[in-house]
Amino acid sequence: MTKEDNRKKFVDEFPSLVSQLTQSLREYGIPQDAIDWYEKSLNYNTPGGKLNRGLSVVDTYVILKNCKSPLDLPVDEYRRVALLGWCVELLQAYFLVADDMMDKSITRRGQPCWYRVEEVGDMAINDAFMLEAAIYCLLKRNFRDQPYYVDLLELLHDVTFQTEVGQLLDLMTAPEFIVDLNKFSLQRHSYIVIFKTAYYSFYLPVALAMYAAGVNDERDFAQAREVLLPLGEYFQIQDDYLDCFGRPEDIGKIGTDIQDNKCSWVINAALKLCSPEQRKILDENYGRKDPECEQRCKQIFYDLKLQEVYERYEEQVAARLRERIGEIDESRGFRREVLYSFLDKVYRRKK
Amino acid sequence: MTKEDNRKKFVDEFPSLVSQLTQSLREYGIPQDAIDWYEKSLNYNTPGGKLNRGLSVVDTYVILKNCKSPLDLPVDEYRRVALLGWCVELLQAYFLVADDMMDKSITRRGQPCWYRVEEVGDMAINDAFMLEAAIYCLLKRNFRDQPYYVDLLELLHDVTFQTEVGQLLDLMTAPEFIVDLNKFSLQRHSYIVIFKTAYYSFYLPVALAMYAAGVNDERDFAQAREVLLPLGEYFQIQDDYLDCFGRPEDIGKIGTDIQDNKCSWVINAALKLCSPEQRKILDENYGRKDPECEQRCKQIFYDLKLQEVYERYEEQVAARLRERIGEIDESRGFRREVLYSFLDKVYRRKK
Repeated sequence: MTKEDNRKKFVDEFPSLVSQLTQSLREYGIPQDAIDWYEKSLNYNTPGGKLNRGLSVVDTYVILKNCKSPLDLPVDEYRRVALLGWCVELLQAYFLVADDMMDKSITRRGQPCWYRVEEVGDMAINDAFMLEAAIYCLLKRNFRDQPYYVDLLELLHDVTFQTEVGQLLDLMTAPEFIVDLNKFSLQRHSYIVIFKTAYYSFYLPVALAMYAAGVNDERDFAQAREVLLPLGEYFQIQDDYLDCFGRPEDIGKIGTDIQDNKCSWVINAALKLCSPEQRKILDENYGRKDPECEQRCKQIFYDLKLQEVYERYEEQVAARLRERIGEIDESRGFRREVLYSFLDKVYRRKK
Repeated sequence: MTKEDNRKKFVDEFPSLVSQLTQSLREYGIPQDAIDWYEKSLNYNTPGGKLNRGLSVVDTYVILKNCKSPLDLPVDEYRRVALLGWCVELLQAYFLVADDMMDKSITRRGQPCWYRVEEVGDMAINDAFMLEAAIYCLLKRNFRDQPYYVDLLELLHDVTFQTEVGQLLDLMTAPEFIVDLNKFSLQRHSYIVIFKTAYYSFYLPVALAMYAAGVNDERDFAQAREVLLPLGEYFQIQDDYLDCFGRPEDIGKIGTDIQDNKCSWVINAALKLCSPEQRKILDENYGRKDPECEQRCKQIFYDLKLQEVYERYEEQVAARLRERIGEIDESRGFRREVLYSFLDKVYRRKK
């Protein structure tokens, strides 16, 4: 099964989830115009991204079930695990709709951010809430008879809270218009990206698939976390690196982290290595909406040879994770291959 | 036990819940400044209101347990049911922080709305999320061993979704700056207030207390809903009525529903009864930020004798609810007194 077919099969599940959700509202007796609004928000905000998180629930499940491809799963089994994948995408949609408002972003996935759509505006806050609510509505409709139903609910609650804490840390560390590099540090960056990104993007999809596959020993969840959280951190560091040093034609955008005062790995690595003179220039130029200021920061990043620093970090972390995966105990049904396949997707990624 | 002592005992529980929540973040290893922020948000947004919803969890539980007062409950039992009461208050805090942003409100409970506090701004969206997350964190820490734990989670998920749907209906029906009375109707008003207010303010506290007290037959939840949803609707109609016709010294504020284009019971009752000439005046004057326009609307409300219409409605609905409560089947442990005590608090309320 090609990657494209895999993705298409997953995408094809989404309309039936939207139907279930609108059906739930219909059962409440809600007027049609509100149902139409909800349907529009679901379709606008949930698919349309790369769907890596949702797909990795399916991919992990396939490995844990010792299958070769999603095609080997009975139809109903596929649909259930794909639904869990869509729960991760709904959770992400909930975060992104809100993050875009808090960051005052303009576009997302090549279209205007939801809050900037005609007639939406601040109603997007409530729409974000309803994207989250969709998760629990779908789980109730499809998983309440499973012995691990309450585990799914707790996992999603925990990861949601962790992500929100990460977002709080990020917002406190790098407010949009107050530049204060004293708040930044590599340690701070590590907290932010592990909580804001790694839990929901890396650990959550694997943990959901583990519950569904019956691989549910706490030691196995701990083994998964010990690789997936640092891997998620590595992924985000790479993202930060590519924003500054990637080729726009590869990453599909022009990086704006410097002008946006982002607490990125790049600035934190620079702060650790720079001279007092360089620090002064960074203090005066980072986070300014001015291409010349941006260029001065970039020059320092080049002078500090951050590209080499990054490459050393990448090789070290990848080697460490490979080693750690090699030590994974597979005796209770967890599989190293789950983690290798994640690492392979991240390692030396250029886009 | 006086009402004031009852309230104080309930309020005294809150700090230990804040401690549990900050302890959870500490266990995650979160930096102290983010913990401090969360603590500040919890304390700013959760207590400080009338706490009717939270207190009614305790009051209902006391009745279902055949006690006279909360003092009759063992300390641990009181603390657990008070925690459920605080979950309703946290849910309300989550809604109010967000509603105030969407409504662009200025003050709440005599202090600036959270999003208007220095340094908060749009971060309030994430803070609202974290108020919701507090509920599930507390339930996990305190109720996961109970057989009804998953019932609590589903109840809270369902009611949260219903309230969000109600908020969506309200925002769609009465956007802040687009006056279109054609969207209004008494039927529409009924949907809005049942979903936006009645589920979480009336049904939720009783249902939580029922689970905790072991009164958990679906027929009893249905009996509770059949009284509490219309009672919640009546409460909100009363609120709408008092905003227009109440005495400022009683209700503690000057009503602004007319200028704010609110989809209130008052305008909907007027639309049903008015002549074409009166309708034209309402179309031209309702929802305008102008005291003269407001006065023209009010004059029509007086001309239509809406005060008498309201009084007839109040007597009718109260009689109907009393009758319905009288028919309640108490054989499985549900108690009519729970519902009478709610009705008594609402009936002929002037403030």
